[in-house]
Amino acid sequence: MPGPGRSLADLAAHFGLELRGDPTTRIDGIGTLERAGPGQLSFLANPLYRQQLSGTRAAAVVLREADADACPVPCLLAAEPYAAFAKLAALFDTATARPAGVHPSAVVDPSATVAASAGIGPLAWIGPRARIGEGAWIGPGCTVGEDCEVGEGSELIARASLVTRVRLGKRVRVHPGAVLGADGFGLAMDAGRWIKVPQLGGVLVGDDCEIGANTCIDRGAIDDTVLEDDVRLDNQIQVGHNVRIGAHTAMAGCVAVAGSTRIGRYCLIGGGAGLVGHIELCDRVMVTAMSLVTHSISEPGEYSSGTPIQRNRDWRRNAARFKQLDRLARKIAGLSTTED
Amino acid sequence: MPGPGRSLADLAAHFGLELRGDPTTRIDGIGTLERAGPGQLSFLANPLYRQQLSGTRAAAVVLREADADACPVPCLLAAEPYAAFAKLAALFDTATARPAGVHPSAVVDPSATVAASAGIGPLAWIGPRARIGEGAWIGPGCTVGEDCEVGEGSELIARASLVTRVRLGKRVRVHPGAVLGADGFGLAMDAGRWIKVPQLGGVLVGDDCEIGANTCIDRGAIDDTVLEDDVRLDNQIQVGHNVRIGAHTAMAGCVAVAGSTRIGRYCLIGGGAGLVGHIELCDRVMVTAMSLVTHSISEPGEYSSGTPIQRNRDWRRNAARFKQLDRLARKIAGLSTTED
Amino acid sequence: MPGPGRSLADLAAHFGLELRGDPTTRIDGIGTLERAGPGQLSFLANPLYRQQLSGTRAAAVVLREADADACPVPCLLAAEPYAAFAKLAALFDTATARPAGVHPSAVVDPSATVAASAGIGPLAWIGPRARIGEGAWIGPGCTVGEDCEVGEGSELIARASLVTRVRLGKRVRVHPGAVLGADGFGLAMDAGRWIKVPQLGGVLVGDDCEIGANTCIDRGAIDDTVLEDDVRLDNQIQVGHNVRIGAHTAMAGCVAVAGSTRIGRYCLIGGGAGLVGHIELCDRVMVTAMSLVTHSISEPGEYSSGTPIQRNRDWRRNAARFKQLDRLARKIAGLSTTED
Repeated sequence: MPGPGRSLADLAAHFGLELRGDPTTRIDGIGTLERAGPGQLSFLANPLYRQQLSGTRAAAVVLREADADACPVPCLLAAEPYAAFAKLAALFDTATARPAGVHPSAVVDPSATVAASAGIGPLAWIGPRARIGEGAWIGPGCTVGEDCEVGEGSELIARASLVTRVRLGKRVRVHPGAVLGADGFGLAMDAGRWIKVPQLGGVLVGDDCEIGANTCIDRGAIDDTVLEDDVRLDNQIQVGHNVRIGAHTAMAGCVAVAGSTRIGRYCLIGGGAGLVGHIELCDRVMVTAMSLVTHSISEPGEYSSGTPIQRNRDWRRNAARFKQLDRLARKIAGLSTTED
Repeated sequence: MPGPGRSLADLAAHFGLELRGDPTTRIDGIGTLERAGPGQLSFLANPLYRQQLSGTRAAAVVLREADADACPVPCLLAAEPYAAFAKLAALFDTATARPAGVHPSAVVDPSATVAASAGIGPLAWIGPRARIGEGAWIGPGCTVGEDCEVGEGSELIARASLVTRVRLGKRVRVHPGAVLGADGFGLAMDAGRWIKVPQLGGVLVGDDCEIGANTCIDRGAIDDTVLEDDVRLDNQIQVGHNVRIGAHTAMAGCVAVAGSTRIGRYCLIGGGAGLVGHIELCDRVMVTAMSLVTHSISEPGEYSSGTPIQRNRDWRRNAARFKQLDRLARKIAGLSTTED
Repeated sequence: MPGPGRSLADLAAHFGLELRGDPTTRIDGIGTLERAGPGQLSFLANPLYRQQLSGTRAAAVVLREADADACPVPCLLAAEPYAAFAKLAALFDTATARPAGVHPSAVVDPSATVAASAGIGPLAWIGPRARIGEGAWIGPGCTVGEDCEVGEGSELIARASLVTRVRLGKRVRVHPGAVLGADGFGLAMDAGRWIKVPQLGGVLVGDDCEIGANTCIDRGAIDDTVLEDDVRLDNQIQVGHNVRIGAHTAMAGCVAVAGSTRIGRYCLIGGGAGLVGHIELCDRVMVTAMSLVTHSISEPGEYSSGTPIQRNRDWRRNAARFKQLDRLARKIAGLSTTED
């Protein structure tokens, strides 16, 4: 499907979607329901935005069959409109091609190996014994430290750091400011002073993982910190040493996972949530935003902590009562004994 | 007012403040009430520090008229002493001048444009089609990626990154480690694996905004992520894709705002607070530290969630009762039914 | 003790530990109880892992005397096995030696001074009037700004930034992405717009401190922000301007401390906890994970806030009742008045 635009019929055929409306509709870009204009394809997945459908000026919309009758323009039907849209939108992504070879301003240690088809960007540093695989990209300002390995087709966008003994699988994407393989936070108190516990492990990241901007994944104390395949981490996440994260688990921004905790597969961790150390979450656990998980969870499902947002004046009264809660409960127990 | 020191009378006249005490008092620096010495100007704005006034050895103090009688040294009267002090202190800021021109160690893509009066610092990278405006400064180790634009007089202090399609207005200040324009966290589940939703939008930052150290602002999925003019973000903040932040809103450190949320003007978001995605806050909403906002807010005012800090042994008892709260409430309802 | 391996007897003698079992046991590496193999030394400190002792295939184990009888292999006895292990493990740390001298790709301002035995890594920048002490290491991609000082034997691992007026003591370790000495977040509202309060102070870091990856410590508004000796900060921590942290205090990841707060010595702050500004914590305060400290604490001990993690359906019911808590408490008070 070369050229600047595609017909809706071509898109439907290419992705196996049912088409309703004019098959010759030209699509040459992407837009939201609210703002799309002529030639732009939009989508409806989140019901929150359903009321925008009737007024859309998009050229066409990807949506569920149930929404098709309400759509004022041609549409493509998908059981999962968001996933279908993701694939369609990729056709219109115009990222600049990344050249293979080492930029003259980059510094590559003589003991490192860089595959012929890999690209090392401006002002990047590749350290002792590092290995950069075929088709990989190390962007501007990145540092890849000793004994790190970047697998085939993986990319460090810009100014990211692999510190020590980090191994990335294939097609891993690391965003700017991310730090993988820094020392885990290992301290022992000795005669009134802290002594540092050497962090002799590494970080092992599976295929197809994504690591968000300014996210940190510490290297293990002895064994490795591990992300299995297809783990997706948003920005500003902290993963302590020797954590293990199961395949297909996704975490929203600002999550913190303390050391040695193990998280199952297909878990969804909401933004700002925390997991204390040395616990285990089974597969398919969902944790809502800013909840703190203080013990292991062995049943799939959704978990929460915290209190609802309120007007501060109301919250103050209720919060003050929280401090009396045990006392209140004992009083109630006393009352009910009297009653029963 | 050249020279190393100014008279208090000069300062009063320059900033239109009423002076009490010796107008020839020389001021050549700045100090806190507690530690200021001879020649240093101090201020009293926060009532917490009022008890330090009587003992101050400052040469003079900026304060409200109501505090003037208690001041043992000359003073300048201001309705807003903190704002007045901010302007006064700027006279004593001694930042090193930043040279115009491109440092020989910087790397500028041939397709980028750099204004004549702009400065590109050591080891910075300016990418394809980037545009750096007059008087702008790109500090050491910064990366400015493809199709990014830095407005007149804006500065990236050091080691900050604009990733893709980021446009900064005038006089924007970006602190080290900040990442603007990284991919938003867009994922769709497809046959048991995540697929990435292309992030085709950008980031638009208005004039006079400030972006703290290690703060992240993701680029939009389709439309742009937007900060209106005079938005002030502290360090370690996470702003998801397609968020819109109204003019003059300020956020303390470690706030997280999930995707597509809209925040009004003149809002104040306390440190570590969280806002879930797809909600809307009206103008002049205050959120206290570490509160989680889970729904839209349409009335100005102060909002909170959470529970008070307590001794752990007391907290444990009360927290355990929180898990019984609905049961306790039903019991009370039953009791009161009996009573009523 | 040169050579690839040591005998258990040598290790016992060197560190003053009692040995049980075969003194000729060779140790050439480190492993966990669960995964250690022949030649590897392990340890048992956390009782959570005691059940792994009987099945270990480690060559020897460092443990408390009380656990010795249950140990199937030779052991070294230590009152504090974790501290003993930290010292033992350091023998097996194989970090690459860092060369003295300035890497040709680094940029050093003519007004800076670099000690003869210091090393400046690839693509690092040393700014105006900066001073780098004997044996210090400034790793790849680091920036050391104006008037900063790095004490003897301190190291910036990689891609860390000292911004302005930061002074590090001896043997300080700063991890990648950390930002010390950025502007504090000082704003004053003036006629409907924010004006910036100049940040004229610096950051003073004592000896033997550790600063985690992507952690930020802002410089003071007037006086310095201060970390006393042996303060240990994990990753992603935010320390506001003019905070003071007492010696030997340790903070886990993602803690946020607002401006001008003072923290005592030997405090332990749990992950994701927050401290509001302008408060004071005495020595030996422990704060549990994700708690918010809103007032000064003058008694040592452990403090907490928050609610327990629950199934979301249960949590929803209880959280809804939290909003009625004051009303419920008044009703109970009414009931008990009736009763009493």
